Amino acid sequence: MFDEIQTPAVLVDIDVARRNIERFQAYAGSHGLKVRPHIKTHKLPAIAEMQLDAGAIGITCQKISEAEAMVAGSDRLTDVLITYNILGNDKLAALLALARRVRLSVVADNAAVVDGLSAAFAAAGAPLTVLVECNTGADRCGVETPQEAADLAARIAAAPGLAFGGLMTYPPAGGAARVQAFLAEARALIEARGIAVPVVSSGGSPDMMSAHLVPAATEHRPGTYVYNDRSLVARGACGWEDCALTVLATVVSVPTANRAIIDAGSKTLTSDLLGLTGHGHVLGRPDISIDQLSEEHGRLRSEGDIALKVGQRLRIVPNHACVVTNMVDAVHIVGTGRQPEMWPVPARGKII
Amino acid sequence: MFDEIQTPAVLVDIDVARRNIERFQAYAGSHGLKVRPHIKTHKLPAIAEMQLDAGAIGITCQKISEAEAMVAGSDRLTDVLITYNILGNDKLAALLALARRVRLSVVADNAAVVDGLSAAFAAAGAPLTVLVECNTGADRCGVETPQEAADLAARIAAAPGLAFGGLMTYPPAGGAARVQAFLAEARALIEARGIAVPVVSSGGSPDMMSAHLVPAATEHRPGTYVYNDRSLVARGACGWEDCALTVLATVVSVPTANRAIIDAGSKTLTSDLLGLTGHGHVLGRPDISIDQLSEEHGRLRSEGDIALKVGQRLRIVPNHACVVTNMVDAVHIVGTGRQPEMWPVPARGKII
Repeated sequence: MFDEIQTPAVLVDIDVARRNIERFQAYAGSHGLKVRPHIKTHKLPAIAEMQLDAGAIGITCQKISEAEAMVAGSDRLTDVLITYNILGNDKLAALLALARRVRLSVVADNAAVVDGLSAAFAAAGAPLTVLVECNTGADRCGVETPQEAADLAARIAAAPGLAFGGLMTYPPAGGAARVQAFLAEARALIEARGIAVPVVSSGGSPDMMSAHLVPAATEHRPGTYVYNDRSLVARGACGWEDCALTVLATVVSVPTANRAIIDAGSKTLTSDLLGLTGHGHVLGRPDISIDQLSEEHGRLRSEGDIALKVGQRLRIVPNHACVVTNMVDAVHIVGTGRQPEMWPVPARGKII
Repeated sequence: MFDEIQTPAVLVDIDVARRNIERFQAYAGSHGLKVRPHIKTHKLPAIAEMQLDAGAIGITCQKISEAEAMVAGSDRLTDVLITYNILGNDKLAALLALARRVRLSVVADNAAVVDGLSAAFAAAGAPLTVLVECNTGADRCGVETPQEAADLAARIAAAPGLAFGGLMTYPPAGGAARVQAFLAEARALIEARGIAVPVVSSGGSPDMMSAHLVPAATEHRPGTYVYNDRSLVARGACGWEDCALTVLATVVSVPTANRAIIDAGSKTLTSDLLGLTGHGHVLGRPDISIDQLSEEHGRLRSEGDIALKVGQRLRIVPNHACVVTNMVDAVHIVGTGRQPEMWPVPARGKII
């Protein structure tokens, strides 16, 4: 199985990825929802272009250095939302440089960030679009109430160098009613101050096929949907056949009848659990669990005879696809009727 | 704090690292134990050289590509043990090439691996040294019994192109008595067949100051000891002041009185728990827990007022130092009386 590829290796089935992209785009289109995929899952300009080809309006990045790497890799990536509070002179200088190349928007959830963005862009010539990040239940970043959202929107609208761009949230799983209530109330409060709300951006893959339950949103930012993973299969969002990203591994030891060791550990599969037990799904072997990872070893257990041989290759669907992409300098693109091809991952490791 | 360094960033205090290296070397020397540090923790040729300067006899790597990167980075790294079952034509060819450059040894725990190594090295001119990996309770790789160890040792000793090098184990925590019993019995069985056992190699940092409780071992392979981390503090192996590796992060949001968000998430701190609760220790703030990571966000919680400001910088001791090193292309070397300096991490991401 893929004998020409050294293991461990990250495989991406490009046909499955394309089907995943088109499926969500069709759903979103049928509900009048724009799609702005989060590139954190693939980190590949060429797949971002596939998303644009399917109808996406632009991309989402989490950090400036991610956006820089993506934009450098494709001149078609001209509309970028960075969903992060950006602070510090070096990062603001990088943001200014990026804003000269693409249609750029960012988010903020506090006055210190807004004031820093304003100081950096006051003399930039063109305003920077800033959305207010709202905490609709995920309890990460975001203003806590619609009233705070309105206050911060007014601050942005009045700030030199900035343009208020709307609202953004990373929603909690299963929280559509709460998300809708927050966003609708925030929009009403902002509009009552005479400020337009051009964009309301929500995100996430787990609930993406329920995005229409938040009619306040104008766009959605799915990330994981392009590859899918074990966490999304566990949530019922997809099947194993929809998982575009797999880890190819080799059995290096079968010390006992019900234990085997593969050459992929946490440096490939990562320790992300996302609420699951075990560290991945061995395709075709639902009787096997991956019960322990060290950096370069994955331990496989079975109830009965594990029936694996040293040298045998396995494909594993990881718990979380996005973080696996971040572990490797290159992925192997596979698909029907094509020779496997190595693609570098330009936005890997971009944490700044 | 380190205003010239963009966050998130991995800092390595070189003075603390040197002290950690020297402390274990002194302990090992006093017990007649050789030291062969595992480079997985630092992945830096210059720190491997510091380990040699302190008295280490060579280095340990887990994968061939790691060894290649280390050897390419320093012509002083001339004695390398790869503690992994190596399989496959591409890897065997790489191993042959590496064996021409350095004094190389590897391990095996099954006949398929031994036979592959033998086929590759039969015509190499000089034999490859192969140690038998023994499972002394960690239940990862390794032969299960001293008898199996002796059988595999005999197979290696008889195999064209190979030389039997001794025994190797990655011991379970707190398992000194069991480790000693296994290794001593295996050695006796092998010597009874007229085969010498030149090296008995054990490893691990958690129990390293009890290495003398396994007198059968001739060398020890500590890894994490060079940097230490929250897991080793929790085990009582060191204090916070002995942690050479920290993650520098910036507070980007303080949405509520007892919650703050930093710009370091699982792409920097990783999701490794090592049995701990939470994702790291904020230096100077034992009242804060890092209760959730997403890829680029770390969530901090406190019982009382968290008393942090947006823009403030924090230093975090991660749960597991080795995997953090693997997340970044470069680390920032800091120390008393020196300007911070960026060092690339040549052996990062080397999973092949």
